[in-house]
Amino acid sequence: MTTDHLSTTFAALADPTRRAILARLVAGDASVTELAEPFEMSLPAISKHLNVLERAGLIARGREAQWRPCRLEAGPLKDVADWTEHYRRFFEQSFDRLHDYMRELKDKEKKHGRKRNQSR
Amino acid sequence: MTTDHLSTTFAALADPTRRAILARLVAGDASVTELAEPFEMSLPAISKHLNVLERAGLIARGREAQWRPCRLEAGPLKDVADWTEHYRRFFEQSFDRLHDYMRELKDKEKKHGRKRNQSR
Repeated sequence: MTTDHLSTTFAALADPTRRAILARLVAGDASVTELAEPFEMSLPAISKHLNVLERAGLIARGREAQWRPCRLEAGPLKDVADWTEHYRRFFEQSFDRLHDYMRELKDKEKKHGRKRNQSR
Repeated sequence: MTTDHLSTTFAALADPTRRAILARLVAGDASVTELAEPFEMSLPAISKHLNVLERAGLIARGREAQWRPCRLEAGPLKDVADWTEHYRRFFEQSFDRLHDYMRELKDKEKKHGRKRNQSR
């Protein structure tokens, strides 16, 4: 099965450990041991996650035989950002609708407040 | 297994048919039959994809018994956009690096061009 690169990226991101690894790499390159530290996971389990990230082009690994530092590669994340941009007007619409609804609630509250004050 | 909502969203997006369905819904609500049309897929196969999208909160379906139109729900896509924002400075850096590299190549080309012209 050939998978398009955007599907591979999304599948790689569909895991909280893998997203946490990427978040850690924002602070700088790190070895597998360093990356494994915050997780209660074996090195082989972390290596498996790193392989998924590497296949998706989200990380690259140094060539030094012993210490193969992992580095964040942001290219596929740019593709994700570009893809989501097509839907921006939809989230903004949802936000506008929420905003309108909040204003409506506030207006109702004000009216109720006035009525209550008038009836006192 | 409990899955965090961002992982569920990314997993739902890791399929070209499901992304194509979302892209179709940008143009307006559609029935399952309408959504199935452009794909060489059975209705049950499309329904399966719709269930994944619905569970991820990416679509909602009308309550009309016969024609249950699907509607795009952009909330989870906003979460994806917000998540990718943390990495923006990385793609911009990569773009800057590419830009610098392109300028370097251009400068080299110019120098070569000049040398070639001088040697004529």
